[in-house]
Amino acid sequence: MENNCIFCKIIKGEVPSYKIYENEYVYAFLDIAKDSVGHTLVIPKEHYVNSLDCDMEYYMRVQEAVKYISEHYVNNCGYTGVNIINASGVDAQQSVFHYHVHIIPRRAEDGLDIWPLKEKYDIDLAKIAEKLKI
Amino acid sequence: MENNCIFCKIIKGEVPSYKIYENEYVYAFLDIAKDSVGHTLVIPKEHYVNSLDCDMEYYMRVQEAVKYISEHYVNNCGYTGVNIINASGVDAQQSVFHYHVHIIPRRAEDGLDIWPLKEKYDIDLAKIAEKLKI
Repeated sequence: MENNCIFCKIIKGEVPSYKIYENEYVYAFLDIAKDSVGHTLVIPKEHYVNSLDCDMEYYMRVQEAVKYISEHYVNNCGYTGVNIINASGVDAQQSVFHYHVHIIPRRAEDGLDIWPLKEKYDIDLAKIAEKLKI
Repeated sequence: MENNCIFCKIIKGEVPSYKIYENEYVYAFLDIAKDSVGHTLVIPKEHYVNSLDCDMEYYMRVQEAVKYISEHYVNNCGYTGVNIINASGVDAQQSVFHYHVHIIPRRAEDGLDIWPLKEKYDIDLAKIAEKLKI
């Protein structure tokens, strides 16, 4: 737990939240952005900055909960799909530095457009693959 | 494996791809969209439509590989962050119906804006939480 972390405060109940789900490892609640109906955040109960530094056990528990909640939204709550989004790192537009996964539940004709990359660049895929491959 | 699935064909080598990583459960390769430098897709080697219907073992292996590849990009390839994005369901703008997770590696001032939800709506969070909570 980090004293100045807003999400740690939410987990401890020091800051109120609209809780969706909780287990030993994770806490899930509504994002307050009000940018879509049902926008949910899933976070580990231990403080990790993002997916890159997250302990593997907590990381896996977060993914498990993301799937569980997504299936609940589609099977029981009238949604027909979900988007799952994470930003890890300030250069990736991360804004709260406690690891969190966004679930954006979707319906037909909900007016959202989550695919952000509209431009095409002159990229040599073979050269990039050579640099990145493991 | 599905005969008419483009990603199954990529796994089988019937369609070429720029491979980044492969293990017993997953295959990772560059997206051909050329909408960002290093845009990578991680897919299970078994055919699942999306995250909602994916077998938990394969789902977890995909998440594990996403983290492994993300860390490689940041630790070894000059990136400083990643975005992780999934679309599950046609209403969530899924376009290829073999489960896949996008990794968008990021750098400072790369000119990308991945956060898609710009509008604010008049949403009663307490009411929504009541409907969605588990």
